[in-house]
Amino acid sequence: MFYRKNRALFTDLYQLTMCQGYFDLDFTRKQATFDLFFRSNPFKGGYTIACGIPLALEFLTNLKFTERDLNYLREQKIFSEEFLEYLLKLRFTGKVEGVREGSVIFPYTPIISVTGPIIETQLVETALLNIINYSTLIATKAARIVNTARGGIIIEFGLRRAQGDSAYIGVRAALVGGCMGTSFIHGGQIWNCPIVGTQAHSWVQAFDSELESFKSYAEIFPDKCLLLIDTYDVLKSGLPHAIEVAKMLRKRGKEILGVRIDSGDLAYLSVEVYREFKKAGFPNISIVLSNELDEFTINSIVQQILERGINNQEERELHEEVISRLSYGVGTKLITGGQQSALGGVYKLVALNKIPKIKVSENVTKTINPGIKKVWRIIDDNEKFIADVIGLYDENDPCSGDWIYHPIEYLKKYQLPKHIVIEPLHHLLMKNGKIIIDEDLYDWKLSQQFCKEQLNGLDSTYKRLLNPHIYKVSLTNQLYELKIDLIKEFSP
Amino acid sequence: MFYRKNRALFTDLYQLTMCQGYFDLDFTRKQATFDLFFRSNPFKGGYTIACGIPLALEFLTNLKFTERDLNYLREQKIFSEEFLEYLLKLRFTGKVEGVREGSVIFPYTPIISVTGPIIETQLVETALLNIINYSTLIATKAARIVNTARGGIIIEFGLRRAQGDSAYIGVRAALVGGCMGTSFIHGGQIWNCPIVGTQAHSWVQAFDSELESFKSYAEIFPDKCLLLIDTYDVLKSGLPHAIEVAKMLRKRGKEILGVRIDSGDLAYLSVEVYREFKKAGFPNISIVLSNELDEFTINSIVQQILERGINNQEERELHEEVISRLSYGVGTKLITGGQQSALGGVYKLVALNKIPKIKVSENVTKTINPGIKKVWRIIDDNEKFIADVIGLYDENDPCSGDWIYHPIEYLKKYQLPKHIVIEPLHHLLMKNGKIIIDEDLYDWKLSQQFCKEQLNGLDSTYKRLLNPHIYKVSLTNQLYELKIDLIKEFSP
Repeated sequence: MFYRKNRALFTDLYQLTMCQGYFDLDFTRKQATFDLFFRSNPFKGGYTIACGIPLALEFLTNLKFTERDLNYLREQKIFSEEFLEYLLKLRFTGKVEGVREGSVIFPYTPIISVTGPIIETQLVETALLNIINYSTLIATKAARIVNTARGGIIIEFGLRRAQGDSAYIGVRAALVGGCMGTSFIHGGQIWNCPIVGTQAHSWVQAFDSELESFKSYAEIFPDKCLLLIDTYDVLKSGLPHAIEVAKMLRKRGKEILGVRIDSGDLAYLSVEVYREFKKAGFPNISIVLSNELDEFTINSIVQQILERGINNQEERELHEEVISRLSYGVGTKLITGGQQSALGGVYKLVALNKIPKIKVSENVTKTINPGIKKVWRIIDDNEKFIADVIGLYDENDPCSGDWIYHPIEYLKKYQLPKHIVIEPLHHLLMKNGKIIIDEDLYDWKLSQQFCKEQLNGLDSTYKRLLNPHIYKVSLTNQLYELKIDLIKEFSP
Repeated sequence: MFYRKNRALFTDLYQLTMCQGYFDLDFTRKQATFDLFFRSNPFKGGYTIACGIPLALEFLTNLKFTERDLNYLREQKIFSEEFLEYLLKLRFTGKVEGVREGSVIFPYTPIISVTGPIIETQLVETALLNIINYSTLIATKAARIVNTARGGIIIEFGLRRAQGDSAYIGVRAALVGGCMGTSFIHGGQIWNCPIVGTQAHSWVQAFDSELESFKSYAEIFPDKCLLLIDTYDVLKSGLPHAIEVAKMLRKRGKEILGVRIDSGDLAYLSVEVYREFKKAGFPNISIVLSNELDEFTINSIVQQILERGINNQEERELHEEVISRLSYGVGTKLITGGQQSALGGVYKLVALNKIPKIKVSENVTKTINPGIKKVWRIIDDNEKFIADVIGLYDENDPCSGDWIYHPIEYLKKYQLPKHIVIEPLHHLLMKNGKIIIDEDLYDWKLSQQFCKEQLNGLDSTYKRLLNPHIYKVSLTNQLYELKIDLIKEFSP
């Protein structure tokens, strides 16, 4: 367990002022249902990878106020002694339903729905959002990056630019999204994943010459020799020195693993470095690229290499070999999300004692879907996902005849194919405060595998980087009508 | 102390593989100097606020490998038993010089310079960058936001969208940059700062009507009544209900604190809400704005309100009063940095046994400034900062005659005014592994005050949001010539 410790004060003050209010009003037995969902895919992409759910369940399991917590709250002079005493005994006793870790999901579908006494379920909002927003952002980023690398391995390299301690759960999310390992030692220890890394520019600088630094490294790590070749000049200095060391190692019966390039024109340099190594008799060399990479730069590197090789058969083969030798160390833009630094997940009250609740907004996309829900995925006979449908918990058929409707623009509708499979998306994850999913489901390796399978269910049009196809998420007629009725009731 | 715990494995694997190499080569007594600096101000801004330095020093003080750490390293089958034994005894014994927490700084100036045995100083790279990159990013963001709010209070609201546990040190950085408090309870407890928060939309939804929810809240918290008025419709519902409750409270001898608006056109709604409250006899109401705010949206809100009020004297006064009543809850874009999610700080070897070292790059801005440094700030007789100069540690005068040179484009030079004050920017922070700055300097309140004073030293042209004036950071002739010589020596 990662969230072993008590983290009851990992929350916003208003959660506790509201809970004091609910306590005073004797609302303690009211059963609330909250949906945790988001309104748009991150990175202007076509899909999202749900992540952080086992961590969220761990947090709930361990929720407990200590005397020290209560003393601090007492100092605020906002809370009554009776309420503080109530908090001391409080544990999370509710129910959680949600999607499986590593699922492909889309806007408006609840990642999890939390039902239980209103004080417990309100109190946990901030931590659940914190964990799932960040994990989901990073798993999605990782999946996008892995998807552009044509089988090239992606290693998480971002600890130095990560936002403080975020890297602990960020590494896990990167693994779920498909990364092979991390450079972060403690992260590797916690999640039991491969840790990776050889040398920095400072190693090369610490010697009087680059060649001397390479030779020393090869002598110390003859079986793990991967050399950083861009400290002074890749083609004029790093490359010939690395080849010299590769030959030296071979004379001793050892093989160089490869080289890393951390600056310059990575597409051009990869090809020229590989060409020379191949000529020198080292066609199996690995080339690790790094330097502010993300899905867009990796995609561009791969495209450029393929295009450069198009002239003749021999060059084409060489360039395709280069691509098969590449792996990528991805740092800042993976572990922080880069240009999008947060998923806008929200946690909204949708029912109180099973009575549906709504929040209206001037912005129609911000008006929530009320009520306790059921969610289905519709799959065609090629095992491709065609649409998700959100309905109410007592409904049994997501399809109104053969049609499904657009969740916001209700004039748009879509006719379903004849042969479909309907699968429930939500599973019971926690009941009476106890986690009821398999221990196995905590294992990021299984989630990584599941994520990979899920992405196979998604047509490539949803996976492209620019202007992806928009996946259909629809409401059942019953939920749609409930929503319209409540909007009318609560719009002044 | 926040970084009380051992965090020796909070590092990248390559730091340890390099250290194994240095150990095998008997480099353990070589004294390395590393500079931690960045190459451009975050947010395309004109300045940066140095932050995280006391936390970085805490990390160094507590550096220590445990047997458990070493067992994990042993499992990797990379490290020798002799080296692991060496690590068990390793403590940080080096020296740290750097700027004061909350300083205004600029690209290329080292925030800190770390000198000591190469193994110790190499090993700590990742953690130092992690702490200072993120803290500096967030303190700078906070300062930019505070600077646009015309005295309006800024409260940190971002825990639910923060990247995992980053919020712990993110809150501290937001305080250093000028925030008044946070919604994050445990953050407030750790840093001993005000915690703030009243209610969410779910509170309003939990009642059969908005008015009932407001009345209940006022009855429970008559002295802290701040009402969220945008659950259904601000002007038609939230506002009249809040005024009704304000009147009810006044009859009981209590005053409403104010209202919060979390959606819609915040500039327009602020004015209309204030207008009605003032008419009703509540001109002292506070209006808290929130909803994806940052320096740009706050600046735009303030501008729009001032422009709307320009028509006549009475309206102008009303609109200026509105601005004086506003405060801002800033979430996601403050605690994550928003569009820029990381500061690109680096940690580069600049000397080994006092011999200057260089790393050359195809990109001239990435070629490092070699050698152990001294840094000065030149201040005019109005106490405004005019330039910073980077020189070598044995130099005593930053000015070559009356001129200073551009650090990258050497054809550009600048004539200094007649009356100037020269101040050293770096202070000795740690010696022989012991922190030697005052305990007081750990206090974010003093750093916040210092940051405010520093920003007063900066002309407003450096502080504007769009295309700010570029502050001059120059090299001394001696450092410039050393750099050119080393570039020639190491360029093949």
